[in-house]
Amino acid sequence: MESNSLDKKNYPLLSQINSPKDIEKIDNVDALCEEIRNKIIEITSENGGHLSPNLGVVELTVALYLVFKPPEDKIIWDVGHQSYVHKMLTGRFKYINSIRKENGISGFTNRNESPYDIFTSGHSSTSISAALGVARSDEILKQNRHTIAVIGDGALTGGLAYEGLNNASKAKNFTVVLNDNKMSISKNVGAVARYLAAARIKPSYVKAKGFLEKVLEMTSVGLKIEDILKQSKSAVKNLIYKSSIFEDMGFVYYGPIDGHDIHQLKKVFELVKGMNQPTVVHVITNKGKGYHLAERDPRIFHAVTPFNPSIGFRSRKGCLSFSDIFGKKLCEIAKKDSRICAITAAMTSGTGLIKFKENFKSRFFDVGIAEGHAVTFASGLAAGGLIPVAAIYSSFLQRAYDQIIHDAALQNLKIILAVDRAGLIGEDGEAHQGVFDVSFLNTIPNVKIFSPSFFEELEIMLEKAVKSKEKCIMAIRYPRGGELEKPENYIFNSKDYEFYGSKESNILIVTYGRIFSEAYLCQQKLKSSSIEVCILKLNVIKPINEQALNYACKFENIVFFEEAVKSGGVGEKFGLLLLERKSFKGKYIVQAISDQFVAHASVRDQLKKFSLDSEGMEKILLDLIN
Amino acid sequence: MESNSLDKKNYPLLSQINSPKDIEKIDNVDALCEEIRNKIIEITSENGGHLSPNLGVVELTVALYLVFKPPEDKIIWDVGHQSYVHKMLTGRFKYINSIRKENGISGFTNRNESPYDIFTSGHSSTSISAALGVARSDEILKQNRHTIAVIGDGALTGGLAYEGLNNASKAKNFTVVLNDNKMSISKNVGAVARYLAAARIKPSYVKAKGFLEKVLEMTSVGLKIEDILKQSKSAVKNLIYKSSIFEDMGFVYYGPIDGHDIHQLKKVFELVKGMNQPTVVHVITNKGKGYHLAERDPRIFHAVTPFNPSIGFRSRKGCLSFSDIFGKKLCEIAKKDSRICAITAAMTSGTGLIKFKENFKSRFFDVGIAEGHAVTFASGLAAGGLIPVAAIYSSFLQRAYDQIIHDAALQNLKIILAVDRAGLIGEDGEAHQGVFDVSFLNTIPNVKIFSPSFFEELEIMLEKAVKSKEKCIMAIRYPRGGELEKPENYIFNSKDYEFYGSKESNILIVTYGRIFSEAYLCQQKLKSSSIEVCILKLNVIKPINEQALNYACKFENIVFFEEAVKSGGVGEKFGLLLLERKSFKGKYIVQAISDQFVAHASVRDQLKKFSLDSEGMEKILLDLIN
Repeated sequence: MESNSLDKKNYPLLSQINSPKDIEKIDNVDALCEEIRNKIIEITSENGGHLSPNLGVVELTVALYLVFKPPEDKIIWDVGHQSYVHKMLTGRFKYINSIRKENGISGFTNRNESPYDIFTSGHSSTSISAALGVARSDEILKQNRHTIAVIGDGALTGGLAYEGLNNASKAKNFTVVLNDNKMSISKNVGAVARYLAAARIKPSYVKAKGFLEKVLEMTSVGLKIEDILKQSKSAVKNLIYKSSIFEDMGFVYYGPIDGHDIHQLKKVFELVKGMNQPTVVHVITNKGKGYHLAERDPRIFHAVTPFNPSIGFRSRKGCLSFSDIFGKKLCEIAKKDSRICAITAAMTSGTGLIKFKENFKSRFFDVGIAEGHAVTFASGLAAGGLIPVAAIYSSFLQRAYDQIIHDAALQNLKIILAVDRAGLIGEDGEAHQGVFDVSFLNTIPNVKIFSPSFFEELEIMLEKAVKSKEKCIMAIRYPRGGELEKPENYIFNSKDYEFYGSKESNILIVTYGRIFSEAYLCQQKLKSSSIEVCILKLNVIKPINEQALNYACKFENIVFFEEAVKSGGVGEKFGLLLLERKSFKGKYIVQAISDQFVAHASVRDQLKKFSLDSEGMEKILLDLIN
Repeated sequence: MESNSLDKKNYPLLSQINSPKDIEKIDNVDALCEEIRNKIIEITSENGGHLSPNLGVVELTVALYLVFKPPEDKIIWDVGHQSYVHKMLTGRFKYINSIRKENGISGFTNRNESPYDIFTSGHSSTSISAALGVARSDEILKQNRHTIAVIGDGALTGGLAYEGLNNASKAKNFTVVLNDNKMSISKNVGAVARYLAAARIKPSYVKAKGFLEKVLEMTSVGLKIEDILKQSKSAVKNLIYKSSIFEDMGFVYYGPIDGHDIHQLKKVFELVKGMNQPTVVHVITNKGKGYHLAERDPRIFHAVTPFNPSIGFRSRKGCLSFSDIFGKKLCEIAKKDSRICAITAAMTSGTGLIKFKENFKSRFFDVGIAEGHAVTFASGLAAGGLIPVAAIYSSFLQRAYDQIIHDAALQNLKIILAVDRAGLIGEDGEAHQGVFDVSFLNTIPNVKIFSPSFFEELEIMLEKAVKSKEKCIMAIRYPRGGELEKPENYIFNSKDYEFYGSKESNILIVTYGRIFSEAYLCQQKLKSSSIEVCILKLNVIKPINEQALNYACKFENIVFFEEAVKSGGVGEKFGLLLLERKSFKGKYIVQAISDQFVAHASVRDQLKKFSLDSEGMEKILLDLIN
């Protein structure tokens, strides 16, 4: 595939670059950077995607590729949401318009896409560990190549990043580029963030000098060093010479460096290249750099849906999401019950908690990208007598599996897990699909799982979970975005399950969550062909209601539709329960996501792919009865 | 229950203590400590358990209870294996002989056991997060109480501990006691360990003073400060003034303190009590303190099986474990294949890797208690062209669930997971049971799971996994300890499955792993009553072999015995596959561990409890056919 003529006209420099070594041929690197920025704004405004993070790393990426020689030298991008620049400079400019589209290139690095993508990414804080593995293998195989992890300050709040740093001792040819953009997705939190903020102000060298001069002055008037030190204890500790945390951990530290100054960046990269010790290069960048709207509000422009570049966003008025409803309802509940706390792992806005944060500051905790801590901390709050509600995206909750088992379920305490982005999530693709939570929560004792299909149900279930006297984990899982079509005259019964349609029919659909809407459409369609289908909608999916099962046993054909992985899912468990009841003599099929990762595409296309939309359901039912 | 007369005689002081406040009444605290030590040696030599960790914290625990007032003040013990002293001082001296026995007290803290056990424990690195939750709830509820996390230097290598520290900003009445015993279970690893080792040598204050004196000397001979700093760059960075990592993270730091000096400990605890800032008290203790054999080799005496206190251990000659076999075989393979690397998360000895470490130093990695990093790092090694084998206990592998999904399965790379301590593990109880791994690995695409029943099978499967060209995760799960009885003339076929007994019989047992031995015994017993039973032994449990399933469909009665949780297990999946094949018309039962945690007892008793021993199996089969 060649770059098209429009790209050649609008991006005369960028369209010449087929691999990183082509960058050297460009005389005007600043103009190249401008083209890259324009292209980023163009594609994200059309396809949606991560805007601010990519605008922030334009010069950093160019400078890395002017000094290091990939794919021999290996650069691993943490999270990978800032890899658009990398992709354009490693032979994928011609495909960049397809980014995040079905069959197009991924919005994150992906090993299947290019030899320049060393590691498939999506989740935060993995790059140091992965890069360290690559660097150690080079040492063992005696390859003289450099490995670099590029990690943001936000990702540094994750424990995995620290585990990586802690293991980097004496690594050769190994550099961690700390891309310090002074915030991650939300404002960065925690001690390390404050530490970096302090480090940014002045190089420590200057501080040391200033302090020593002060000491000299004091000794010149006859004071003893010992007394000066005693007097200025806090000064000694905080103001004087601040050795870097990274140096304490055995790294050679360079920084802070202006991350938009290619000349300066090149100089420091040349310095660290081939060094026999692990190095940290601390780079300061501006998220959203070069696009005035994003510079003004990089948080809003962190990840975007398609927008108009000249005015920013189209109005989202009227487009409520489950996250909005969750946040609103939790505020209502918290107003009446002072024991309610909310916890987020760096997703205050994404999980709908902005209002909660404003209104209940002392009961709100943003713990950074630290899902494990979020859950263990929540259990601590519960042990202290409060009602913690931890709102975490389904795919990120995977990082707290052991904490859910060991620090929550084992404690016989009540914590509420608001599992956001559960189910298929669309364009962010493989790493972000919320399709494992049902299965992994199913494995754990003392867990109850609610699955609302509509906003109103989420509100009722949340209230129920808060009021419940059960000492267990209450998980409420709901999808990204809004509700699907609600049947006319639909009334939620607040029970664990409900049948819709005639129980005398031959065919039963069992399902839960948002795709109940699809099942309903399928039911209506078949009704118009005089085929009666009954639907069993599960509102509580763990435990499975015994009575619902007893009713289900009477059907001749049962199809379980599940927007989650099949293995360990509710459909599998439902099947075993049917089988163990000898009264069931019918056919049973589970339609779910079986043993594969789900690539980026629209949610609609993803549902279609797995026959979880009304058309797919209809076809499966017709095949079954014919 | 009263202390018995023997306890009263041998432990005159200890037997008087029914709650922490009784300690104040004891005049001779040193004598009390000696009694505690004697009791620890007595009970661990009889019941097995954690010896060295408890001997190390005797004075620390006594000092804590002399200053703080539990259960109002809350002390949370990380891992909990050092909580025997705590238990004896909080009303459980009279039960301590039952520790780790069925229906006795737990070898870890447990909320169900006592109001003094604030948090149920077992896994490492959770205490700071949990204690922080408790401390924040006190702030919110305006309770003026102190919360303390006691954490070892080994546990500090876990990312969760760092996430906890990173979130402790401005916490009031909150203290982290760093119990620095200069090693965790194995020798401690990583940058933070080295940092602590340096901190131990001299208080930084002394270093600052020394450096400043040197600077003064140099300025007195006419050198400028600026030049001195330039000249002594590394000195400036490393020798001079070392501010503590904990101070960098916003803690007030006291230490290092002699952890066996009750007077000094009391002084510092009185100092931090009620402080408005979070504090770290860095305490140096000796693991195994007071028992000469354990002091000489605290690693060997970390966790013990029953032993003779005067001579140390009974000989374990002839008692080979799966871990031993794994380690030996891996050495053999690594000798022939230089791409093999071994990774352990602080369990070099436990996973049988001591010889590997000695023989293949450059290819051996102990990453500390950092299972997440172990897996991501392994993937990095694989991306670099090597064959990594990460040996991790089943229950600790739960901490790497997301890394297995995101950093291994998603990468299309081959890594080998040696899942040690899979299945029921006996006296360590709830937190350590290896019963979740099958279910959580089942949820993940690109994972193949091998399940050996005997040593020889582990060897063959390990070799197979190494040689395989498949780009996926190869997990091999094997139990703690040795193999169960091997049938006479047993020959392993090296296939994915095998039938034992007549396929013409009415009854099929399906099983895998070590309990195949129990199934075999059951089969023999029933045979003597003229009841023919066939056994399907699965050697590969993911994916389930299609041909094996087709054969199974023909049986009238199938019972699946599984030494793992039922939910998401192989039995559940096998059931769904039977149900989806319309040809199966028989009865199907899964006998596994259903939706509960398994408390401490012997493995034999635990197998019995879940009818996974031959007697239990026999009973279930007879019930089914009668």
